[in-house]
Amino acid sequence: MDTHLIALDWGTSSLRAYRLGAAGETLEVRGLPLGVMQLDGSEAGFERALEQACGDWQSAAPQAPMIACGMVGSAQGWREARYIEAPLRADELTLLPIERSHGMPLWLVPGVIQRGGVPNVMRGEETQVFGLLDGDDNQLAPLLIGLPGSHSKWVTVEGGQLSRFQTFMTGEVYQALLGHTILGRTAVTNDSFNAAAFERGLRVARSSEGQAGPLSTIFSSRTLVLTGELSGAAQADYLSGLLIGHELAAMSAMLQVPPSQPIVLIGNSTLCARYLWALEHCGFESLRFAPEATAAGLWKIAAGAGLVATDTAGESDVSQHARH
Amino acid sequence: MDTHLIALDWGTSSLRAYRLGAAGETLEVRGLPLGVMQLDGSEAGFERALEQACGDWQSAAPQAPMIACGMVGSAQGWREARYIEAPLRADELTLLPIERSHGMPLWLVPGVIQRGGVPNVMRGEETQVFGLLDGDDNQLAPLLIGLPGSHSKWVTVEGGQLSRFQTFMTGEVYQALLGHTILGRTAVTNDSFNAAAFERGLRVARSSEGQAGPLSTIFSSRTLVLTGELSGAAQADYLSGLLIGHELAAMSAMLQVPPSQPIVLIGNSTLCARYLWALEHCGFESLRFAPEATAAGLWKIAAGAGLVATDTAGESDVSQHARH
Repeated sequence: MDTHLIALDWGTSSLRAYRLGAAGETLEVRGLPLGVMQLDGSEAGFERALEQACGDWQSAAPQAPMIACGMVGSAQGWREARYIEAPLRADELTLLPIERSHGMPLWLVPGVIQRGGVPNVMRGEETQVFGLLDGDDNQLAPLLIGLPGSHSKWVTVEGGQLSRFQTFMTGEVYQALLGHTILGRTAVTNDSFNAAAFERGLRVARSSEGQAGPLSTIFSSRTLVLTGELSGAAQADYLSGLLIGHELAAMSAMLQVPPSQPIVLIGNSTLCARYLWALEHCGFESLRFAPEATAAGLWKIAAGAGLVATDTAGESDVSQHARH
Repeated sequence: MDTHLIALDWGTSSLRAYRLGAAGETLEVRGLPLGVMQLDGSEAGFERALEQACGDWQSAAPQAPMIACGMVGSAQGWREARYIEAPLRADELTLLPIERSHGMPLWLVPGVIQRGGVPNVMRGEETQVFGLLDGDDNQLAPLLIGLPGSHSKWVTVEGGQLSRFQTFMTGEVYQALLGHTILGRTAVTNDSFNAAAFERGLRVARSSEGQAGPLSTIFSSRTLVLTGELSGAAQADYLSGLLIGHELAAMSAMLQVPPSQPIVLIGNSTLCARYLWALEHCGFESLRFAPEATAAGLWKIAAGAGLVATDTAGESDVSQHARH
């Protein structure tokens, strides 16, 4: 099948390459340990990684456009694609081309910034968000999209616009607490998920004692073990419940989310399962899990920029870019 | 001058030994890198450390009683002195003796536990708290004592009783965030204190954006640097202000502290200076800094247990223990 777009999800720790067909369908996908932080930061290093990831696809389809989202467009990436300010629509993500000595340019998707007293940024998540929206981008009912991860993002979409978002460093804080504070000393590593401990953490975060905030409640993951009320093997899941509970309480207060708010989670299915559980525990009624949507988002953004032809994109735009 | 009490502040990472005179005055003090975590955990290891810290004091005054507070009385210490439940008075801290093959026993001060939905514990701080209280232990006006540190404690004292307390892992979280998360990547280490950045952090924590809680606001210590609104050199102090601001907001909400509440801080003077600044910023009016009070606390607890003679302790108790 013909390659119509080479789409890259190029993050901090990994590079995922998609070969997409005429309707944006995935023909082939590859994951490589060639994240931005694993490269030497040089132009040549990025070129080599690109060649390694999809040199054969480029040779076979030398006219196929290429697009990438994620940290590759950050100050530490190949070239910095400046943040675009929210609220914005998919077609407002002005792509930055990296011209190359031979072959097609690589178009970088910029990140999104929300200004205010304290700025908030995302890079890569905007692509998943737009990938999730269905054809009818003008749907008016607001949708809340959660992207759990090292840095969880909660994004409000209204009328096809990414209108507002909030970041929580929950995943990375969880790892740092277990790996580099006294909390890790009593925690016993194990592979099974202790649902009761997780739910207990959620309950504490939402109780009157949870008002003390995570800086205080996390200490209970130690004291409960000291007093024999929690096993060391259950400590990590309790801590996870605590932190996710605090995140959800703050998120729903900040974004003023009613229980009936439709919520979609995108991301790693194991982690999303925890968040779905937690959201249900918090009383949210309309929950959905969506598989990873980066390839769809890259296709949609490429179409919006006229790099590929779709039903809605004009032929003239495409041919213009094909001549590039 | 005669040794009337050998008093040890024996913590996780250090051992501080005080030689106290007839009125509890400090005659000599020594600091040694012989904290509980630096020893091998064996009986002999603790004996050697004790000998090294104050063997000569014991030889010169073989009848002088010995008392120790801190992690030496934890499950990882020499012997476990079980937590006593709050609220409690100094003389309710039942000491646990470690009998030794030769020489006086070492009396361990137990820690304090506050039960509830989630338990809270302290070990060592109770000694500082009681050391701070003046002779009139029956004073009725409640006092709030703050002990900033890796694990900050906020303790309410009423009528000579340690009545309630709350722990915040602020110091340790701060270190873990800077040392082991993405926040450390943009932070530039320097020795000067950037007061403006610290105060900015305090302001954000107390603003409407601070309602998102520390899991979210800490990300702003990165985004402000990314957008050029904060220098890398100022990032650590901004983060410190953020975390301390969140701690104080939660503490005053949990303990229902009015602005007129008299507050005393004990501990490291540099860290206490930050907290005093922050408390003032939060509108508290009656603030005081007290130097470290462990020796005074050990003396008071020893007196309460009849190990040493004071104006208020009966002679009979003393002689009884002297015969021990």
